[in-house]
Amino acid sequence: MHSRELERIRWILSLGGRPEPAGSGRVVIGNGDDAAVWIPPPGAAAVLTVDAQVEGIHFLPGWLTPGEIGARAVAASASDLAAMAARPGGILLAITLPREVPESFFRALYRGALGEARREGLTVLGGNLSAGALTVTVTAVGSVRPAEAVSRSGGRPRDGLYVTGWPGRSSIGLALLRARRKPAASNHRAALLCRRAFASPRPRLSEACALARLVRPRAMVDLSDGLCRDLSHLLGAGVQSAARASRGHRLGAALFTERLEALLLEGGCAALSRSLGLDPLAAALHGGEDYELLFAADPLRVDPILARFRARFGIPLTRIGTVESRPGLRAGGKEIRARGFDHFG
Amino acid sequence: MHSRELERIRWILSLGGRPEPAGSGRVVIGNGDDAAVWIPPPGAAAVLTVDAQVEGIHFLPGWLTPGEIGARAVAASASDLAAMAARPGGILLAITLPREVPESFFRALYRGALGEARREGLTVLGGNLSAGALTVTVTAVGSVRPAEAVSRSGGRPRDGLYVTGWPGRSSIGLALLRARRKPAASNHRAALLCRRAFASPRPRLSEACALARLVRPRAMVDLSDGLCRDLSHLLGAGVQSAARASRGHRLGAALFTERLEALLLEGGCAALSRSLGLDPLAAALHGGEDYELLFAADPLRVDPILARFRARFGIPLTRIGTVESRPGLRAGGKEIRARGFDHFG
Repeated sequence: MHSRELERIRWILSLGGRPEPAGSGRVVIGNGDDAAVWIPPPGAAAVLTVDAQVEGIHFLPGWLTPGEIGARAVAASASDLAAMAARPGGILLAITLPREVPESFFRALYRGALGEARREGLTVLGGNLSAGALTVTVTAVGSVRPAEAVSRSGGRPRDGLYVTGWPGRSSIGLALLRARRKPAASNHRAALLCRRAFASPRPRLSEACALARLVRPRAMVDLSDGLCRDLSHLLGAGVQSAARASRGHRLGAALFTERLEALLLEGGCAALSRSLGLDPLAAALHGGEDYELLFAADPLRVDPILARFRARFGIPLTRIGTVESRPGLRAGGKEIRARGFDHFG
Repeated sequence: MHSRELERIRWILSLGGRPEPAGSGRVVIGNGDDAAVWIPPPGAAAVLTVDAQVEGIHFLPGWLTPGEIGARAVAASASDLAAMAARPGGILLAITLPREVPESFFRALYRGALGEARREGLTVLGGNLSAGALTVTVTAVGSVRPAEAVSRSGGRPRDGLYVTGWPGRSSIGLALLRARRKPAASNHRAALLCRRAFASPRPRLSEACALARLVRPRAMVDLSDGLCRDLSHLLGAGVQSAARASRGHRLGAALFTERLEALLLEGGCAALSRSLGLDPLAAALHGGEDYELLFAADPLRVDPILARFRARFGIPLTRIGTVESRPGLRAGGKEIRARGFDHFG
């Protein structure tokens, strides 16, 4: 380890203090030892996930502030905890940075990550620093009662399909960053909303825990690879459900695409999208990294709480379709193919 | 996510199966969902650590086979579990690879990681794939009864200091790789031993659990940054013990350097070291990435089992010094300064 890395560890440990509110579970040995020792709350299991944000792949130089890079990496991993309806516990933060990066960049990045962790109730349990290409790899740890974890499988025909927030905004924000030109004045507010959706996504941790309690989702994922592709996973058609698919449990869905389009009318995001040459519905269906929740549940449980959800969390909860026994995704009778999401087309 | 990454995930999940022997704890939801759900054994806490191996920083192209790159990354993280006397549980495997890397390289790297995980009783709980510079980031998860976790602090004056294995071999192996020339025939066996120590380190998981039971180490670390530097951490003088140092709990140690030199005589490693222009004692004191255990314990407990330990585990356990109340490291009355370990000096 280089002396600069030791200096950085000294600085990190000097920030000290546990976050307020502290994550679930109890930290017996915290950051700074060979490993952390963490006890999940009584009756709960540990929930574990890892995600990496890589410069040049997930974002290009200059798109994000260093603080946003750190915060976004934490948010992306926290979003996977949300998808299991887990309570936040802690994170391990592995950062590789080119040697020529100034100390101020490192500190701003770390502070961004730490701020996001604290906001979401995640204690920093450990980490790793190394020279290398700019990459932030976040392991997120949470807790859930095993019977209450919401996996990807479990959806049934006639379940309603629901999403939180405004799917598509993030990829419109990405298109804006790629276009490298200022939006028209009329699109100013939409540009802010979409840039924020890309640069500062909010993991839906408290929303997921509330949903688990109120509506008992039968299957849930977060939107990282694009709605259609993530929905395919949830329906057992995706690559991650190979075992289930081989048992013949492939499902399909009818989508209410007009509702996805309506969500993007809010704030003028659809108009911004068109001005960038991007079909708003394509952004909603195939754009990635929205970090919203997508779940299947009994409509009798969910439909009555839609308005209350928005009032409480300040974001919409929208029914966007119905699970069907016939495989494939359809809208208005026409087949939709899940497309790969590629940052740089 | 790119379709190639989806193909790779499909391939990974097709490898399937839990390792034999499975890690400690119980996997409720395994690899392939948004996150894994894992329950530590009854009465045990979760132990969590992350480590990254970066091409160009931890090794140069051509030094390691792809399988060794994967296995070494798993071993380095598992070694941190060992340092807490934790039982192995599982890993999360985050891999970034340049797009031009052939599929065979990826598969060999992954198989190397998986093989090492299985060998050490670690279940693959999840992971992440991305394009980027070649980096393998491994989160290791283990379990320990909270009262039995061995932290870095806790050493006391008059404790014996002990190491497993042969500290220094790894950095002699590194010097050999850097020298890019074939060793003399007389150094052939030593070259094999030292290259293996660098390329295929063995995490001392079962050794650590046995030691925790037999000799109750008061403080333990694994050797990653070099013996002197890691020892400084253990004595409260290191950066990671700032809080403790500020409370005046800095300790020191007298080292029996002739014993470290004697260890490197085994297999002719000292001679190889000298032929490479590297002082064997400097390799033992300051070389990094040995992934051996270093601990402080009551000599009355440890000294009687030294021979039995070697017979059981096939590696030496050596007393290399004594904890003293006076800060600093000394050998034969002379001060030793911990030096930074730098791969490419």
